[in-house]
Amino acid sequence: MARWEPNARERLVRAAVELFAEQGYETTTVIEIAERAGGLTKTTFFRHFSDKREVLFAGQEIHNRIVAEAIAEAPETATPLDMVGLALEGLASSFTEDRRDIGRRLRAVIANSAELQERSASKRAALSEATAQALRTRGVSELVADLAAELGTRAFYGAFDRWTSAPDPRTLVEYAREVFGELKTAMSVLE
Amino acid sequence: MARWEPNARERLVRAAVELFAEQGYETTTVIEIAERAGGLTKTTFFRHFSDKREVLFAGQEIHNRIVAEAIAEAPETATPLDMVGLALEGLASSFTEDRRDIGRRLRAVIANSAELQERSASKRAALSEATAQALRTRGVSELVADLAAELGTRAFYGAFDRWTSAPDPRTLVEYAREVFGELKTAMSVLE
Repeated sequence: MARWEPNARERLVRAAVELFAEQGYETTTVIEIAERAGGLTKTTFFRHFSDKREVLFAGQEIHNRIVAEAIAEAPETATPLDMVGLALEGLASSFTEDRRDIGRRLRAVIANSAELQERSASKRAALSEATAQALRTRGVSELVADLAAELGTRAFYGAFDRWTSAPDPRTLVEYAREVFGELKTAMSVLE
Repeated sequence: MARWEPNARERLVRAAVELFAEQGYETTTVIEIAERAGGLTKTTFFRHFSDKREVLFAGQEIHNRIVAEAIAEAPETATPLDMVGLALEGLASSFTEDRRDIGRRLRAVIANSAELQERSASKRAALSEATAQALRTRGVSELVADLAAELGTRAFYGAFDRWTSAPDPRTLVEYAREVFGELKTAMSVLE
Protein backbone atom coordinates (compact mmCIF):
# COMPACT_ATOMS: atom_id res chain seq x y z
CA MET A 1 0.00 0.00 0.00
CA ALA A 2 1.27 3.44 -0.95
CA ARG A 3 2.25 5.50 2.06
CA TRP A 4 2.15 9.26 1.90
CA GLU A 5 5.72 10.48 1.95
CA PRO A 6 6.06 14.19 2.73
CA ASN A 7 8.17 16.03 0.10
CA ALA A 8 9.19 12.72 -1.43
CA ARG A 9 9.77 14.31 -4.81
CA GLU A 10 12.02 17.02 -3.48
CA ARG A 11 13.90 14.56 -1.24
CA LEU A 12 14.51 12.25 -4.19
CA VAL A 13 15.90 15.11 -6.28
CA ARG A 14 18.30 16.13 -3.52
CA ALA A 15 19.37 12.55 -2.86
CA ALA A 16 19.97 11.89 -6.54
CA VAL A 17 22.04 15.02 -7.05
CA GLU A 18 24.09 14.23 -3.94
CA LEU A 19 24.77 10.64 -4.96
CA PHE A 20 25.56 11.51 -8.57
CA ALA A 21 28.02 14.13 -7.33
CA GLU A 22 29.65 11.74 -4.83
CA GLN A 23 29.90 8.50 -6.76
CA GLY A 24 29.00 9.32 -10.35
CA TYR A 25 25.81 9.22 -12.35
CA GLU A 26 26.42 5.90 -14.09
CA THR A 27 27.01 3.83 -10.99
CA THR A 28 24.19 5.21 -8.86
CA THR A 29 21.03 3.09 -8.73
CA VAL A 30 17.41 4.03 -8.15
CA ILE A 31 17.42 1.95 -4.96
CA GLU A 32 20.35 3.94 -3.58
CA ILE A 33 18.59 7.20 -4.39
CA ALA A 34 15.39 6.11 -2.67
CA GLU A 35 17.34 4.91 0.37
CA ARG A 36 19.35 8.15 0.65
CA ALA A 37 16.12 10.14 0.42
CA GLY A 38 15.30 9.01 3.96
CA GLY A 39 14.38 5.39 3.47
CA LEU A 40 12.00 5.68 0.55
CA THR A 41 11.34 2.71 -1.73
CA LYS A 42 11.92 2.08 -5.41
CA THR A 43 8.14 2.08 -5.85
CA THR A 44 7.93 5.60 -4.43
CA PHE A 45 10.73 6.65 -6.75
CA PHE A 46 8.87 5.38 -9.79
CA ARG A 47 5.68 7.12 -8.73
CA HIS A 48 7.56 10.38 -9.23
CA PHE A 49 10.06 9.74 -12.02
CA SER A 50 10.29 7.45 -15.03
CA ASP A 51 14.01 6.74 -14.48
CA LYS A 52 17.07 8.05 -12.67
CA ARG A 53 17.94 10.46 -15.46
CA GLU A 54 14.60 12.23 -15.30
CA VAL A 55 15.13 13.18 -11.65
CA LEU A 56 17.57 15.77 -12.91
CA PHE A 57 15.14 17.26 -15.39
CA ALA A 58 12.05 17.17 -13.23
CA GLY A 59 11.26 20.87 -13.53
CA GLN A 60 10.99 20.89 -17.32
CA GLU A 61 7.22 20.94 -17.68
CA ILE A 62 6.62 23.38 -14.85
CA HIS A 63 9.23 25.76 -16.26
CA ASN A 64 7.72 25.62 -19.72
CA ARG A 65 4.30 26.34 -18.25
CA ILE A 66 5.52 29.35 -16.23
CA VAL A 67 7.03 30.87 -19.35
CA ALA A 68 3.94 30.21 -21.49
CA GLU A 69 1.61 31.72 -18.90
CA ALA A 70 3.72 34.83 -18.40
CA ILE A 71 3.67 35.49 -22.14
CA ALA A 72 -0.06 34.76 -22.44
CA GLU A 73 -0.76 37.26 -19.66
CA ALA A 74 1.57 40.03 -20.87
CA PRO A 75 -0.10 43.40 -21.66
CA GLU A 76 -1.43 44.05 -25.16
CA THR A 77 1.21 46.69 -25.73
CA ALA A 78 4.18 44.43 -24.87
CA THR A 79 6.78 43.91 -27.60
CA PRO A 80 8.22 40.41 -28.17
CA LEU A 81 11.25 41.29 -26.04
CA ASP A 82 9.02 42.72 -23.31
CA MET A 83 7.08 39.44 -23.23
CA VAL A 84 10.30 37.44 -23.03
CA GLY A 85 11.46 39.70 -20.20
CA LEU A 86 8.28 38.94 -18.26
CA ALA A 87 8.66 35.21 -18.91
CA LEU A 88 12.22 35.38 -17.69
CA GLU A 89 11.23 37.17 -14.48
CA GLY A 90 8.52 34.61 -13.83
CA LEU A 91 10.81 31.67 -14.43
CA ALA A 92 13.75 33.05 -12.46
CA SER A 93 11.56 33.99 -9.49
CA SER A 94 10.36 30.37 -9.25
CA PHE A 95 13.89 29.37 -8.14
CA THR A 96 14.15 29.83 -4.40
CA GLU A 97 17.51 30.31 -2.71
CA ASP A 98 17.70 26.65 -1.65
CA ARG A 99 17.86 25.61 -5.33
CA ARG A 100 21.18 27.35 -5.75
CA ASP A 101 23.24 24.62 -4.13
CA ILE A 102 21.34 21.87 -5.97
CA GLY A 103 21.88 23.77 -9.20
CA ARG A 104 25.60 24.01 -8.53
CA ARG A 105 25.97 20.27 -7.96
CA LEU A 106 23.72 19.47 -10.89
CA ARG A 107 25.92 21.48 -13.22
CA ALA A 108 28.97 19.49 -12.13
CA VAL A 109 27.15 16.17 -12.60
CA ILE A 110 25.94 17.13 -16.08
CA ALA A 111 29.41 18.35 -17.07
CA ASN A 112 30.71 14.82 -16.44
CA SER A 113 28.24 12.91 -18.62
CA ALA A 114 27.70 13.12 -22.37
CA GLU A 115 24.28 11.53 -21.94
CA LEU A 116 23.22 14.15 -19.42
CA GLN A 117 24.60 16.94 -21.58
CA GLU A 118 22.44 15.75 -24.45
CA ARG A 119 19.38 15.52 -22.22
CA SER A 120 20.15 18.96 -20.88
CA ALA A 121 20.40 20.40 -24.39
CA SER A 122 17.02 18.87 -25.15
CA LYS A 123 15.49 20.48 -22.04
CA ARG A 124 16.90 23.80 -23.08
CA ALA A 125 15.49 23.39 -26.60
CA ALA A 126 12.08 22.55 -25.12
CA LEU A 127 12.13 25.74 -23.03
CA SER A 128 13.01 27.78 -26.09
CA GLU A 129 10.27 26.10 -28.11
CA ALA A 130 7.68 26.67 -25.36
CA THR A 131 8.65 30.36 -25.33
CA ALA A 132 8.47 30.67 -29.11
CA GLN A 133 5.13 28.87 -29.22
CA ALA A 134 3.66 31.25 -26.63
CA LEU A 135 4.94 34.24 -28.63
CA ARG A 136 3.42 32.90 -31.85
CA THR A 137 0.12 32.51 -30.03
CA ARG A 138 0.39 36.23 -29.27
CA GLY A 139 0.70 36.94 -32.99
CA VAL A 140 4.49 37.26 -33.21
CA SER A 141 5.86 36.05 -36.53
CA GLU A 142 7.72 32.75 -36.55
CA LEU A 143 11.29 33.95 -36.98
CA VAL A 144 10.92 36.86 -34.60
CA ALA A 145 9.37 34.52 -32.03
CA ASP A 146 12.25 32.07 -32.45
CA LEU A 147 14.90 34.73 -31.99
CA ALA A 148 13.20 36.34 -29.02
CA ALA A 149 12.79 32.90 -27.43
CA GLU A 150 16.44 32.17 -28.02
CA LEU A 151 17.47 35.39 -26.31
CA GLY A 152 15.26 34.61 -23.33
CA THR A 153 16.59 31.07 -23.04
CA ARG A 154 20.18 32.29 -23.27
CA ALA A 155 19.48 34.90 -20.62
CA PHE A 156 18.01 32.27 -18.32
CA TYR A 157 20.87 29.79 -18.69
CA GLY A 158 23.48 32.54 -18.53
CA ALA A 159 21.89 33.84 -15.34
CA PHE A 160 21.65 30.35 -13.87
CA ASP A 161 25.36 29.83 -14.51
CA ARG A 162 26.25 33.04 -12.72
CA TRP A 163 23.84 32.37 -9.86
CA THR A 164 25.22 28.88 -9.23
CA SER A 165 28.87 29.98 -9.64
CA ALA A 166 28.85 33.14 -7.57
CA PRO A 167 29.05 33.35 -3.81
CA ASP A 168 27.33 36.74 -3.88
CA PRO A 169 23.82 37.20 -2.54
CA ARG A 170 22.03 38.35 -5.67
CA THR A 171 18.91 36.45 -6.66
CA LEU A 172 18.43 34.58 -9.92
CA VAL A 173 15.97 37.29 -10.98
CA GLU A 174 18.67 39.93 -10.63
CA TYR A 175 21.12 37.88 -12.68
CA ALA A 176 18.43 37.25 -15.29
CA ARG A 177 17.84 41.00 -15.72
CA GLU A 178 21.58 41.58 -15.95
CA VAL A 179 22.23 38.93 -18.61
CA PHE A 180 19.12 39.85 -20.61
CA GLY A 181 20.32 43.46 -20.70
CA GLU A 182 23.77 42.37 -21.88
CA LEU A 183 22.25 40.23 -24.61
CA LYS A 184 20.14 43.10 -25.88
CA THR A 185 23.24 45.29 -26.02
CA ALA A 186 25.19 42.56 -27.85
CA MET A 187 22.37 42.27 -30.37
CA SER A 188 22.48 45.97 -31.10
CA VAL A 189 26.25 45.73 -31.71
CA LEU A 190 25.78 42.83 -34.11
CA GLU A 191 23.96 44.78 -36.75
CA MET B 1 43.83 -8.29 -43.64
CA ALA B 2 42.16 -4.95 -44.32
CA ARG B 3 40.98 -4.66 -47.90
CA TRP B 4 40.64 -1.24 -49.49
CA GLU B 5 36.96 -0.58 -50.00
CA PRO B 6 36.26 2.28 -52.39
CA ASN B 7 33.91 4.88 -50.87
CA ALA B 8 33.20 2.59 -47.94
CA ARG B 9 32.40 5.48 -45.66
CA GLU B 10 29.92 7.05 -48.04
CA ARG B 11 28.34 3.66 -48.83
CA LEU B 12 27.91 2.92 -45.13
CA VAL B 13 26.18 6.24 -44.53
CA ARG B 14 23.75 5.65 -47.40
CA ALA B 15 23.06 2.07 -46.33
CA ALA B 16 22.45 3.12 -42.73
CA VAL B 17 20.07 5.90 -43.65
CA GLU B 18 18.18 3.55 -46.01
CA LEU B 19 17.84 0.81 -43.43
CA PHE B 20 16.89 3.15 -40.60
CA ALA B 21 14.19 4.63 -42.84
CA GLU B 22 12.90 1.21 -43.92
CA GLN B 23 12.93 -0.77 -40.70
CA GLY B 24 13.67 1.70 -37.93
CA TYR B 25 16.81 2.85 -36.17
CA GLU B 26 16.50 0.65 -33.09
CA THR B 27 16.19 -2.67 -34.88
CA THR B 28 18.92 -2.14 -37.47
CA THR B 29 22.28 -3.76 -36.71
CA VAL B 30 25.79 -2.80 -37.77
CA ILE B 31 26.06 -6.11 -39.63
CA GLU B 32 22.97 -5.29 -41.70
CA ILE B 33 24.35 -1.86 -42.52
CA ALA B 34 27.71 -3.29 -43.64
CA GLU B 35 25.96 -5.94 -45.74
CA ARG B 36 23.62 -3.42 -47.41
CA ALA B 37 26.62 -1.22 -48.22
CA GLY B 38 27.63 -3.75 -50.86
CA GLY B 39 28.92 -6.64 -48.79
CA LEU B 40 31.18 -4.81 -46.39
CA THR B 41 32.09 -6.31 -43.04
CA LYS B 42 31.50 -5.25 -39.47
CA THR B 43 35.24 -4.66 -39.18
CA THR B 44 35.14 -2.18 -42.06
CA PHE B 45 32.19 -0.47 -40.39
CA PHE B 46 34.10 -0.02 -37.15
CA ARG B 47 37.13 1.34 -39.00
CA HIS B 48 34.91 4.27 -39.99
CA PHE B 49 32.43 4.72 -37.14
CA SER B 50 32.36 4.06 -33.41
CA ASP B 51 28.74 2.84 -33.48
CA LYS B 52 25.60 2.85 -35.60
CA ARG B 53 24.44 6.17 -34.21
CA GLU B 54 27.61 7.97 -35.24
CA VAL B 55 27.03 7.07 -38.89
CA LEU B 56 24.30 9.70 -38.91
CA PHE B 57 26.53 12.41 -37.46
CA ALA B 58 29.65 11.64 -39.43
CA GLY B 59 30.04 15.13 -40.88
CA GLN B 60 30.23 16.90 -37.53
CA GLU B 61 33.96 17.48 -37.33
CA ILE B 62 34.37 18.39 -40.98
CA HIS B 63 31.52 20.89 -40.76
CA ASN B 64 32.96 22.51 -37.67
CA ARG B 65 36.32 22.79 -39.40
CA ILE B 66 34.85 24.40 -42.54
CA VAL B 67 33.14 27.03 -40.43
CA ALA B 68 36.21 27.74 -38.31
CA GLU B 69 38.44 28.11 -41.38
CA ALA B 70 36.03 30.41 -43.19
CA ILE B 71 35.94 32.72 -40.18
CA ALA B 72 39.70 32.59 -39.68
CA GLU B 73 40.22 33.58 -43.33
CA ALA B 74 37.61 36.36 -43.46
CA PRO B 75 38.89 39.85 -44.38
CA GLU B 76 40.08 42.17 -41.61
CA THR B 77 37.16 44.50 -42.25
CA ALA B 78 34.47 41.83 -41.88
CA THR B 79 31.86 42.35 -39.14
CA PRO B 80 30.78 39.38 -36.99
CA LEU B 81 27.73 38.87 -39.20
CA ASP B 82 29.86 39.11 -42.34
CA MET B 83 32.12 36.37 -40.95
CA VAL B 84 29.14 34.20 -40.13
CA GLY B 85 27.81 34.76 -43.65
CA LEU B 86 31.10 33.51 -45.09
CA ALA B 87 31.08 30.48 -42.80
CA LEU B 88 27.54 29.71 -43.87
CA GLU B 89 28.43 29.91 -47.55
CA GLY B 90 31.39 27.62 -47.02
CA LEU B 91 29.40 25.08 -45.08
CA ALA B 92 26.39 25.10 -47.39
CA SER B 93 28.54 24.78 -50.50
CA SER B 94 30.09 21.60 -49.09
CA PHE B 95 26.71 19.86 -49.53
CA THR B 96 26.49 18.50 -53.04
CA GLU B 97 23.11 17.81 -54.67
CA ASP B 98 23.32 14.07 -53.94
CA ARG B 99 23.20 14.84 -50.20
CA ARG B 100 19.69 16.25 -50.52
CA ASP B 101 17.97 12.89 -50.65
CA ILE B 102 20.09 11.49 -47.80
CA GLY B 103 19.28 14.60 -45.80
CA ARG B 104 15.56 14.14 -46.40
CA ARG B 105 15.61 10.54 -45.16
CA LEU B 106 17.85 11.42 -42.27
CA ARG B 107 15.40 14.06 -41.07
CA ALA B 108 12.61 11.49 -41.01
CA VAL B 109 14.74 8.96 -39.13
CA ILE B 110 15.77 11.53 -36.51
CA ALA B 111 12.18 12.71 -36.10
CA ASN B 112 11.25 9.17 -35.00
CA SER B 113 13.86 8.75 -32.26
CA ALA B 114 14.28 10.71 -29.03
CA GLU B 115 17.86 9.44 -28.77
CA LEU B 116 18.71 10.71 -32.25
CA GLN B 117 17.00 14.03 -31.58
CA GLU B 118 19.21 14.52 -28.54
CA ARG B 119 22.32 13.59 -30.51
CA SER B 120 21.24 15.94 -33.26
CA ALA B 121 20.76 18.80 -30.80
CA SER B 122 24.26 18.14 -29.51
CA LYS B 123 25.69 18.27 -33.06
CA ARG B 124 23.93 21.55 -33.62
CA ALA B 125 25.28 22.95 -30.35
CA ALA B 126 28.79 21.87 -31.36
CA LEU B 127 28.48 23.71 -34.68
CA SER B 128 27.33 26.84 -32.89
CA GLU B 129 30.18 26.55 -30.40
CA ALA B 130 32.76 26.04 -33.17
CA THR B 131 31.43 29.18 -34.87
CA ALA B 132 31.48 31.21 -31.65
CA GLN B 133 34.98 30.01 -30.83
CA ALA B 134 36.26 31.05 -34.26
CA LEU B 135 34.65 34.48 -33.82
CA ARG B 136 36.22 34.93 -30.39
CA THR B 137 39.59 34.08 -31.91
CA ARG B 138 38.96 36.98 -34.29
CA GLY B 139 38.50 39.28 -31.31
CA VAL B 140 34.70 39.31 -31.17
CA SER B 141 33.39 39.63 -27.61
CA GLU B 142 31.85 36.56 -26.03
CA LEU B 143 28.16 37.47 -26.12
CA VAL B 144 28.30 38.97 -29.60
CA ALA B 145 30.14 35.87 -30.82
CA ASP B 146 27.51 33.62 -29.25
CA LEU B 147 24.62 35.50 -30.81
CA ALA B 148 26.22 35.71 -34.24
CA ALA B 149 27.01 31.98 -34.06
CA GLU B 150 23.44 31.25 -33.11
CA LEU B 151 22.13 33.19 -36.09
CA GLY B 152 24.47 31.35 -38.44
CA THR B 153 23.51 27.95 -37.02
CA ARG B 154 19.82 28.79 -37.28
CA ALA B 155 20.31 29.93 -40.86
CA PHE B 156 22.09 26.70 -41.73
CA TYR B 157 19.49 24.40 -40.18
CA GLY B 158 16.59 26.48 -41.53
CA ALA B 159 18.13 26.32 -45.00
CA PHE B 160 18.75 22.59 -44.69
CA ASP B 161 15.09 22.05 -43.78
CA ARG B 162 13.94 23.96 -46.84
CA TRP B 163 16.46 22.29 -49.12
CA THR B 164 15.45 18.78 -48.04
CA SER B 165 11.71 19.58 -48.08
CA ALA B 166 11.45 21.41 -51.37
CA PRO B 167 11.35 19.83 -54.80
CA ASP B 168 12.71 23.03 -56.37
CA PRO B 169 16.19 23.17 -57.86
CA ARG B 170 17.77 25.81 -55.66
CA THR B 171 21.04 24.90 -53.96
CA LEU B 172 21.62 24.79 -50.23
CA VAL B 173 23.78 27.92 -50.60
CA GLU B 174 20.83 29.82 -52.08
CA TYR B 175 18.56 28.73 -49.23
CA ALA B 176 21.24 29.64 -46.70
CA ARG B 177 21.44 33.19 -48.08
CA GLU B 178 17.66 33.45 -48.06
CA VAL B 179 17.21 32.29 -44.45
CA PHE B 180 20.16 34.33 -43.18
CA GLY B 181 18.61 37.43 -44.76
CA GLU B 182 15.27 36.67 -43.13
CA LEU B 183 16.93 36.21 -39.75
CA LYS B 184 18.73 39.53 -40.02
CA THR B 185 15.43 41.21 -40.84
CA ALA B 186 13.71 39.50 -37.90
CA MET B 187 16.49 40.69 -35.61
CA SER B 188 16.07 44.28 -36.72
CA VAL B 189 12.33 44.02 -35.95
CA LEU B 190 13.06 42.71 -32.45
CA GLU B 191 14.88 45.78 -31.27
